[in-house]
Amino acid sequence: MQKALDYVRANRERNVNELIEFLRIPSISALPEHKPDIERAAHWLAAEMTRVGLQNANVLPTKGHPVVYADWLEAGPSAPTALIYGHYDVQPVDPLDLWHTPPFEPNIRDGKIYARGATDDKGQVYLLVKAMEAMLAAEGRLPINVKFLIEGEEECGSSNLDEFVLANKTLFFANHVLICDTGFLAPGQPAIAYSVRGIVGAEIHVTGPKTDLHSGGYGGTVRNPTHALAAIIAAMHDEHGYIRIPGFYDSVRPMSEEERAALNSVPYTLEQWQKATGLQTPWGEPDFTLLERTGARPTCEVNGIWGGFQGEGGKTIIPAKAGAKFTMRLVADQDPHAALQQFKDYVLSIAPTNLKVEVLLKDACAPAMTPIEAREIATAARALESVWGKPPVYLRGGGSLPILATFRSALGLPFVCLGFGLPDSGAHAPNEHFDLEQFHLGTETVIRYLHYLIG
Amino acid sequence: MQKALDYVRANRERNVNELIEFLRIPSISALPEHKPDIERAAHWLAAEMTRVGLQNANVLPTKGHPVVYADWLEAGPSAPTALIYGHYDVQPVDPLDLWHTPPFEPNIRDGKIYARGATDDKGQVYLLVKAMEAMLAAEGRLPINVKFLIEGEEECGSSNLDEFVLANKTLFFANHVLICDTGFLAPGQPAIAYSVRGIVGAEIHVTGPKTDLHSGGYGGTVRNPTHALAAIIAAMHDEHGYIRIPGFYDSVRPMSEEERAALNSVPYTLEQWQKATGLQTPWGEPDFTLLERTGARPTCEVNGIWGGFQGEGGKTIIPAKAGAKFTMRLVADQDPHAALQQFKDYVLSIAPTNLKVEVLLKDACAPAMTPIEAREIATAARALESVWGKPPVYLRGGGSLPILATFRSALGLPFVCLGFGLPDSGAHAPNEHFDLEQFHLGTETVIRYLHYLIG
Repeated sequence: MQKALDYVRANRERNVNELIEFLRIPSISALPEHKPDIERAAHWLAAEMTRVGLQNANVLPTKGHPVVYADWLEAGPSAPTALIYGHYDVQPVDPLDLWHTPPFEPNIRDGKIYARGATDDKGQVYLLVKAMEAMLAAEGRLPINVKFLIEGEEECGSSNLDEFVLANKTLFFANHVLICDTGFLAPGQPAIAYSVRGIVGAEIHVTGPKTDLHSGGYGGTVRNPTHALAAIIAAMHDEHGYIRIPGFYDSVRPMSEEERAALNSVPYTLEQWQKATGLQTPWGEPDFTLLERTGARPTCEVNGIWGGFQGEGGKTIIPAKAGAKFTMRLVADQDPHAALQQFKDYVLSIAPTNLKVEVLLKDACAPAMTPIEAREIATAARALESVWGKPPVYLRGGGSLPILATFRSALGLPFVCLGFGLPDSGAHAPNEHFDLEQFHLGTETVIRYLHYLIG
Repeated sequence: MQKALDYVRANRERNVNELIEFLRIPSISALPEHKPDIERAAHWLAAEMTRVGLQNANVLPTKGHPVVYADWLEAGPSAPTALIYGHYDVQPVDPLDLWHTPPFEPNIRDGKIYARGATDDKGQVYLLVKAMEAMLAAEGRLPINVKFLIEGEEECGSSNLDEFVLANKTLFFANHVLICDTGFLAPGQPAIAYSVRGIVGAEIHVTGPKTDLHSGGYGGTVRNPTHALAAIIAAMHDEHGYIRIPGFYDSVRPMSEEERAALNSVPYTLEQWQKATGLQTPWGEPDFTLLERTGARPTCEVNGIWGGFQGEGGKTIIPAKAGAKFTMRLVADQDPHAALQQFKDYVLSIAPTNLKVEVLLKDACAPAMTPIEAREIATAARALESVWGKPPVYLRGGGSLPILATFRSALGLPFVCLGFGLPDSGAHAPNEHFDLEQFHLGTETVIRYLHYLIG
């Protein structure tokens, strides 16, 4: 193992330069005009996997963006097999004017690399590849069998991956899933997420008059679609921050006293929240702590809203239309389709009748959880502690990994989230970055994890 | 007079062709990139005024877009002087994809000319010029003295015109103001607006986290700016449609029973409102009729709203910012600056404290009213009845003509709104158009009005 770790340390500069190449490809999965970049990123990654000595590297078509597959299965039948999951696609970059350097021209400042996808998730996918390279180059083999499944639709709902995995179950047979797409609690404090939230999306479209109307001629007689939309959004939470959708909390699994105590023993302070958000005062369900609100409680948030004239100057109209995009984060044991239906029923029940309100249901993905007692989680904890000198804390992750619910239900696999992002890394926001020390030490941690799994 | 009327009838085709030239110039005053077009429209109009025989035509600079001035003062000292006001600027054109033909490529279909500004107000300004041309060409003179003041900032608040008029009071001395920027009640039913509403603008800017945040990592702990904005908008009206800003209605002048009866004798049906709006059910203050709501009552409407991700697909963020543009329409005797302050005080009083809410106050213009008994209004009624065979109804206009308050207060001038637009002309909306019969007969009406003023 030491040889592989030494190899990583000797190749830090080269590893960063290669990561820069990967980050340069604007593989934004949500925007159709970036489809060629998605293809380019997939093929770049597959070529890189072959180069480092992985086998059967291939770009496999799905109904949406392709999956990159590679494996190395020569550890023998008694060695376990890890299915390594990640994604090569990235979020859109707007608002572009808030980026200090262009999102697809990676820039290194103060030991951090700034680019869209640096932390989420190209940087973390690439450290997995670099760990494999180090072991194959320095030790000639891997301690266990691995299968890589790196998808291209994570940032737009992984809507075609389920079907792809279900259609290729034997290809993805393994003993557990390893994912590097989460993060540390704080610099120096590793964390393992044992639960991820589900996510569902919906849009509300409000249509009022047949065309924008002169606000002088019709204001005061026409229900303004932006007002109607605002009233619906305002009715989504009560004054304490509880979601008012009837039945929404009914299937939320209560935390045991033990779990609550463990989660709240995690050293996460108001100051950390303040630093990351730039705000003074949190908001949300007063009966739950910040960690509980983001990990163990469902949410309902507007991601975007629009209607009428947004340009410079003024335009005196009653807008014909308004709309908003919502996502809800779900926790065990909420059913995503049921939650979407509850959302739709509630919106339509409070919608005014003097204009048209439509609710479009988007992607739905279930929450997932692996018991902290699982062997793979204990092994990951050992690897983290050996590199950072500190045991990890155990978190309920606030984000969503759509495919985990499928791995869990279709293949019965437990999962380990071994992530190296830092809390202020700007995932999904301008100036996303990845701390390069996290990148290099993350590579070492993966090497240790694979070795510890067999000894 | 008959010679001038015959001249108009003989030149219908040429008049339309010249109007097309005027409508081709995209003189959008609210968008800085159209400043050259504004200049071009002003110079085109001044040249046209000179060509038809008006005198002293000139493009006069203001602190904003220029004013086009022209006069003809040879009717003698005993003849009255009309100050003819209009505007050559137009509204923005978005949403552009809803236009059936491009907004600045005038297109004639079913006797209507489709173009931005066709009705509001280039078509109506141009029929005034054509009326002068007909009288000067066919009769060699005008019955009265005229001064034209055609501005270029009406659609963005006329913010520099007040100062310009006050600095040039003697230039604009006259006996009354004539305006063609309003419309008929219905095809065949002329109308005279004796009251116009004031207008004030404001923007609310809500700033939450320092950057867009991952909705998985921070949803449920951060007050979402779009939610906060929605709550403020939802609190702007009560469930009946009354504005909840404290004190907002205090200075609204009550209508007399006589005025209410006259206004409500105007034949305006629910079906007309339904046809114009495409909606089934009106909204608004239940104690007032549709005509009262748009003419005699103040309003508070969102013209545009924005925040977060508006593109195709999804983006799982808590937006850092959200905002909305508002305009309020005011009636006598509301003070625009007081109304703006009431708006701001109310918004800040209900704003949440866990994020930043700013209120930016924009243009403010007072309401204005001329008694129905005024001689000029009676004369306009006679001209309208002689052309259309039907007396006009008297309306409180829903729109705003910012300069009227100045003419009234600074120069003491009564005003006559002699407008020829039809209710579904799409002013401020896609597919704006002007019925060409209204254009030609409007020209004849102006000729009669000037003649009737002296006999």
